Amino acid sequence: MALTCRLYREGKLQDSSFDPIKIGEALGQPGVLVWLDIEGPTEENMALLGKQFGFHELALEDCLHPHQRPKVEQYGTYFFLVAYGSSVSGKDLQEHEMAAFVGGNYLVTVRKEPVFDMAEVVRRWDAHSELHQEGGGYLLYILLDEMVDGYFTALELYEDLTEDIEDKVFGGGGGAEAQADIFRVKKELIMFRRSVAPLRDVLDVMQRRTLEVVTERLEPYYRDVYDHVLRTTDFVDSIRDILSSALEAHLAVVSNRLNEVMKVLTSWAAIILIPTLIAGIYGMNFVHMPELRWRFGYVYALVLMFGAAAMLYRIFKRRGWL
Amino acid sequence: MALTCRLYREGKLQDSSFDPIKIGEALGQPGVLVWLDIEGPTEENMALLGKQFGFHELALEDCLHPHQRPKVEQYGTYFFLVAYGSSVSGKDLQEHEMAAFVGGNYLVTVRKEPVFDMAEVVRRWDAHSELHQEGGGYLLYILLDEMVDGYFTALELYEDLTEDIEDKVFGGGGGAEAQADIFRVKKELIMFRRSVAPLRDVLDVMQRRTLEVVTERLEPYYRDVYDHVLRTTDFVDSIRDILSSALEAHLAVVSNRLNEVMKVLTSWAAIILIPTLIAGIYGMNFVHMPELRWRFGYVYALVLMFGAAAMLYRIFKRRGWL
Amino acid sequence: MALTCRLYREGKLQDSSFDPIKIGEALGQPGVLVWLDIEGPTEENMALLGKQFGFHELALEDCLHPHQRPKVEQYGTYFFLVAYGSSVSGKDLQEHEMAAFVGGNYLVTVRKEPVFDMAEVVRRWDAHSELHQEGGGYLLYILLDEMVDGYFTALELYEDLTEDIEDKVFGGGGGAEAQADIFRVKKELIMFRRSVAPLRDVLDVMQRRTLEVVTERLEPYYRDVYDHVLRTTDFVDSIRDILSSALEAHLAVVSNRLNEVMKVLTSWAAIILIPTLIAGIYGMNFVHMPELRWRFGYVYALVLMFGAAAMLYRIFKRRGWL
Amino acid sequence: MALTCRLYREGKLQDSSFDPIKIGEALGQPGVLVWLDIEGPTEENMALLGKQFGFHELALEDCLHPHQRPKVEQYGTYFFLVAYGSSVSGKDLQEHEMAAFVGGNYLVTVRKEPVFDMAEVVRRWDAHSELHQEGGGYLLYILLDEMVDGYFTALELYEDLTEDIEDKVFGGGGGAEAQADIFRVKKELIMFRRSVAPLRDVLDVMQRRTLEVVTERLEPYYRDVYDHVLRTTDFVDSIRDILSSALEAHLAVVSNRLNEVMKVLTSWAAIILIPTLIAGIYGMNFVHMPELRWRFGYVYALVLMFGAAAMLYRIFKRRGWL
Amino acid sequence: MALTCRLYREGKLQDSSFDPIKIGEALGQPGVLVWLDIEGPTEENMALLGKQFGFHELALEDCLHPHQRPKVEQYGTYFFLVAYGSSVSGKDLQEHEMAAFVGGNYLVTVRKEPVFDMAEVVRRWDAHSELHQEGGGYLLYILLDEMVDGYFTALELYEDLTEDIEDKVFGGGGGAEAQADIFRVKKELIMFRRSVAPLRDVLDVMQRRTLEVVTERLEPYYRDVYDHVLRTTDFVDSIRDILSSALEAHLAVVSNRLNEVMKVLTSWAAIILIPTLIAGIYGMNFVHMPELRWRFGYVYALVLMFGAAAMLYRIFKRRGWL
Repeated sequence: MALTCRLYREGKLQDSSFDPIKIGEALGQPGVLVWLDIEGPTEENMALLGKQFGFHELALEDCLHPHQRPKVEQYGTYFFLVAYGSSVSGKDLQEHEMAAFVGGNYLVTVRKEPVFDMAEVVRRWDAHSELHQEGGGYLLYILLDEMVDGYFTALELYEDLTEDIEDKVFGGGGGAEAQADIFRVKKELIMFRRSVAPLRDVLDVMQRRTLEVVTERLEPYYRDVYDHVLRTTDFVDSIRDILSSALEAHLAVVSNRLNEVMKVLTSWAAIILIPTLIAGIYGMNFVHMPELRWRFGYVYALVLMFGAAAMLYRIFKRRGWL
Repeated sequence: MALTCRLYREGKLQDSSFDPIKIGEALGQPGVLVWLDIEGPTEENMALLGKQFGFHELALEDCLHPHQRPKVEQYGTYFFLVAYGSSVSGKDLQEHEMAAFVGGNYLVTVRKEPVFDMAEVVRRWDAHSELHQEGGGYLLYILLDEMVDGYFTALELYEDLTEDIEDKVFGGGGGAEAQADIFRVKKELIMFRRSVAPLRDVLDVMQRRTLEVVTERLEPYYRDVYDHVLRTTDFVDSIRDILSSALEAHLAVVSNRLNEVMKVLTSWAAIILIPTLIAGIYGMNFVHMPELRWRFGYVYALVLMFGAAAMLYRIFKRRGWL
Repeated sequence: MALTCRLYREGKLQDSSFDPIKIGEALGQPGVLVWLDIEGPTEENMALLGKQFGFHELALEDCLHPHQRPKVEQYGTYFFLVAYGSSVSGKDLQEHEMAAFVGGNYLVTVRKEPVFDMAEVVRRWDAHSELHQEGGGYLLYILLDEMVDGYFTALELYEDLTEDIEDKVFGGGGGAEAQADIFRVKKELIMFRRSVAPLRDVLDVMQRRTLEVVTERLEPYYRDVYDHVLRTTDFVDSIRDILSSALEAHLAVVSNRLNEVMKVLTSWAAIILIPTLIAGIYGMNFVHMPELRWRFGYVYALVLMFGAAAMLYRIFKRRGWL
Repeated sequence: MALTCRLYREGKLQDSSFDPIKIGEALGQPGVLVWLDIEGPTEENMALLGKQFGFHELALEDCLHPHQRPKVEQYGTYFFLVAYGSSVSGKDLQEHEMAAFVGGNYLVTVRKEPVFDMAEVVRRWDAHSELHQEGGGYLLYILLDEMVDGYFTALELYEDLTEDIEDKVFGGGGGAEAQADIFRVKKELIMFRRSVAPLRDVLDVMQRRTLEVVTERLEPYYRDVYDHVLRTTDFVDSIRDILSSALEAHLAVVSNRLNEVMKVLTSWAAIILIPTLIAGIYGMNFVHMPELRWRFGYVYALVLMFGAAAMLYRIFKRRGWL
Repeated sequence: MALTCRLYREGKLQDSSFDPIKIGEALGQPGVLVWLDIEGPTEENMALLGKQFGFHELALEDCLHPHQRPKVEQYGTYFFLVAYGSSVSGKDLQEHEMAAFVGGNYLVTVRKEPVFDMAEVVRRWDAHSELHQEGGGYLLYILLDEMVDGYFTALELYEDLTEDIEDKVFGGGGGAEAQADIFRVKKELIMFRRSVAPLRDVLDVMQRRTLEVVTERLEPYYRDVYDHVLRTTDFVDSIRDILSSALEAHLAVVSNRLNEVMKVLTSWAAIILIPTLIAGIYGMNFVHMPELRWRFGYVYALVLMFGAAAMLYRIFKRRGWL
């Protein structure tokens, strides 16, 4: 909804709420840099962009429809870029989709809901005026750098979650929810990777300076962002591998526990059933059963039962079943 | 069966049921664009195509035999393309195979059963007359764009099914059918991917404008379709990954439940068998069994049984087995 | 053993049992095409080939030793090719290894045991005389096309077997043999893929016309065979993926069934053991057990047993254990 | 330890125990070919090589340290190669590491312990004098060919072991050791592949004749060895796939057997416990139990027990549990 | 914290604690080589580097922040490199992060905590003065070679741990901790690989001599380090494969043991329950039970029980259940 237009002349901010209607005119003047930022794009905004900048209808459509694939596309004199930022609130990860048009002396950023916070970008841009002459390319770098920095916050969250899961799997406790946790984190990582991985190709293209906006002086900066994205995907892949291993280990743990339970069951069944059998024997009604008339027959039977049980207990203990 | 031939002159529809016999003649005139559409191709149709356009016998054969691999092939002045559209009816996905011959001033579409609906393609073509001068290439773009748009409907269906499966797996309910559902969706995704993935290569070739029909003005459009196919395959791959994770989680859930059942079994077995043993003991026929003559012997025995059972119950409860 | 030599002059069969000794001489004449076919190659045959055509000793060795890897190798003016055909007899797949030497005006085919049937190749070659002037390249195309067509018969067999397996896995029946079936089909697919996949590279090389025998006019034909091989490997891969999913599903089904069996076991154990305990209680020999003297004590005990059993039955039924 | 130096002049063996000190001198003469073979290299041997041939210190170091990665490295006018041969003794596979320096007119082979047997190489070299003029390249080919031929012996061993495993998995017998066998063979294959796979790249480089020693006439020979290595890795991969499938099948078999055992357990438990309950009932001490006084009460009870057991047996039999 | 600056002139150490403030000046003189080593970098150190060498701010930032991705980056006349060394203390692996700036006549090494030990590097550098004229490139080679050599120590540790795991899995003992061990080693390998694998690309770039510092004479040395990194990643991959196989085998072993336990349980249940049933039968209170009055009825009953148990024992033994 919000639409902010900043006009810079010779690297200095001249107007922080420039009238977008006059953009087309301003772009013709030398030393001018225009940054138009749109939060929550509408059809009217897009119409304005089409009129003032002459952007291609397909790019404008992509600004309106969410869930685009990260990409960079050259259209004549400008290029169009889609990327995702991420932020963590509590234990949840939010993805912020952003589109950008970058030309020689302008940058148009289109932020879709939920909106990526730009305060830090503005601060850094104002603080590093020495690179302002590189134009929109440098501004875009700051923007991408901020987005990619957010990935590491996300990765730390996932790393923590993974360690929690490990504790659950190998801890003495239930472990029953471990599989649900593993699944949830894995699923989120699959989603996260889907929005980061294509950015790798995008930045690979940019750091090789095949696009004009990336000037020679900006090359190390773009290479740096590219390097961060590589670290991100490496990291995501290793967390996924660890989670896969954790799930396998979890399955093994569960199987092992079942074995333990079965051994305990078998052991106690035997320990209880043998005395039951003895009791059954002396419960038989035969006329001629000498033990029945023994003075300490009863005691003898109890000792027999207890002895059998104790012996079995010791056997199972020694075999490690109890 | 149905065969529709539309003749456009200078970008305007001149005849919506042109006689196909005259096509060869019409193609020689300037400013003419012919769109011949065949529903359910027959041998006679193919013979007609061979005669009027001079298409290669191998391409014509591919039009008759279903289940071709998506591809684009250059034959001298025209090229031949096979692609699949998809539509959802209820919870079932239908694939629509389509072949197309594209030349400088004609497009021949061959739709096999079940037939892909072209109404929207015709509507869009008629609505965007400004790009008619790009010829068959633009018409083909609309066609491909419509087909690829249908993929997202399919993906939404699969995403919904996947979420249903997750609920089944982690829900309290049976979960017994989860594996069949996972298998079915996975199988369909394998099939779906098989008919989409090669299209990626086809469109990659086209968007690089190595084929003449894709003019400079059409490039962004083909790039857009290509981008959508990339999103589709990314999406398919992530759903498959999620399903694999879901199945693993399902196996872990099942194993865990077995553990629970076994613990319950073991616990109750012990709780029932211990009183049974006590009953067995006092059912023995020893002459000298003092308890038997006690006034409250019976009560004492019942209390013993109940006490033992209650104690075991508490022990198992505390260990989390019940 | 059998050795057949056909001599064509200007595209027409002149001699269907040409004497192989005269081949070297015949090849020097214009308009001649020689097709020498060897069934079950022997050392003498190879010596003959070496003498008449001057083939390289390594290629001749490969003709004698079975289980070569599909390949195409350029040797000066001719090239050497190894490929596998397949045929289905009953539910079994047979692989037919074939080697071929292709030169400007000759084709030598060497068929190892079990021998691939050539009748259809001869029929097609004789029927399409219009392409005879393309020489050995066209003949080889027919041969390869026939071989590759056989793959689809094999794939249909595997597809049917896979569907049988699915029915076994998810059907009510045993499912006990499902894993053996899955294993067998998977193993055969691994073998089948091993003899098809390298052919993909072979045909990719050929359809790009880097070898002289593939003339411009033959290009679409080789591209068509290449496309069929791609379809074959795609198909094999998807069947393997489906089988893997089927096995995972099978494991889940088996685990689930175990759960069911365990629940049934636990339920019935409780239902039988509780009345047994009651019987045990009234089998105790206490002097003071009032119920024993009740007029309807026995009936009361039976009712108690039956009631307990019925109650448990209802509980388990409601929990879905029975 | 052993050091053998053979001197060939114009393709003929002139001295089979040439003094290595004179090598440097001999290499300067035309038509000379020196083959120096070292078994179990020592530091002194390496110093000799450094002095006579001027080999690089890094290559010489690699000759002394075992477990190098198969590779081919160009050093100025000569190249250095590491490869592994294999031989089977009983059911065990032995790997033979070998390093080689190849120059225009010399070949130095360094064989580490356990030493690869060269008798066949010498025999073949002496038998094919027609290619002696290709120099060290041809000798190296024979050597590599012998090494790679040994791979097939290894593969046959693994194939046999895999078939034994299949029999164990699906055979009626225990199957308990199947997993240990699968693991052992898999582990060996991983090791084996590690020493073969890099050789593929080595030979790919050589068969493209990017190294001078591979002359035009030798090209088909190197291509042949390359082809054999490809077959080897294909074969290893398919055996590994088969073993993976076998292990999955084994897990399914084990799970299924557990199911069978559980059904048997459940069935027999019920068949035994029902008569036990009946016996318990007639063991109750109620005063008023009419059956107890029936003339054929006992028989009736036994019939009841037997009948119940028989009925249950039939039910379980029909459900396929027994 | 520690900062050591060594000044070499014409390949000889002139000052082992050169004042870093004068570096800028010294670099201008011919024949000079400066090695500045920083242990535990601080902001002030970085400011010094920026001033004396003019390094890029992004590279300096990377020196301060840990966990960079291994990389090599060209910045005008110098290049910046990040790599990881590793050392083993007890059973734990430590990773040592290091950054380096390499120019024509200087090398700056920045070692982060825990600090990699440089003593051996200094020793080797001093010992091989013949290559000093290659400048920083040779010094860097020694450094990388030492780091990579540490990898093999790590790999031996992992290989030992893997063999311990195998013993646990297939040994008669518990095996219960095997899964935790497998998981831990796997996780460490994933981490280890993440810090080694990118180094492969770094060294691939360097050994191709696309960077000026790697002179022709140094090429074999860099190729050697590259080869060692390849061996490392090959080795890591094979250990991971072996661990995966071990876990699968472990799961199979656990499943098999469960089967064994269940068979034992079923067998003993039957062996105990049948005599219990017999005892129950002769505990019934029927008036007319002839056996009860037999003289040796009791003995007969005991024999019956013992006989039934013995028979069952034999049956189960024969079926391999006990």
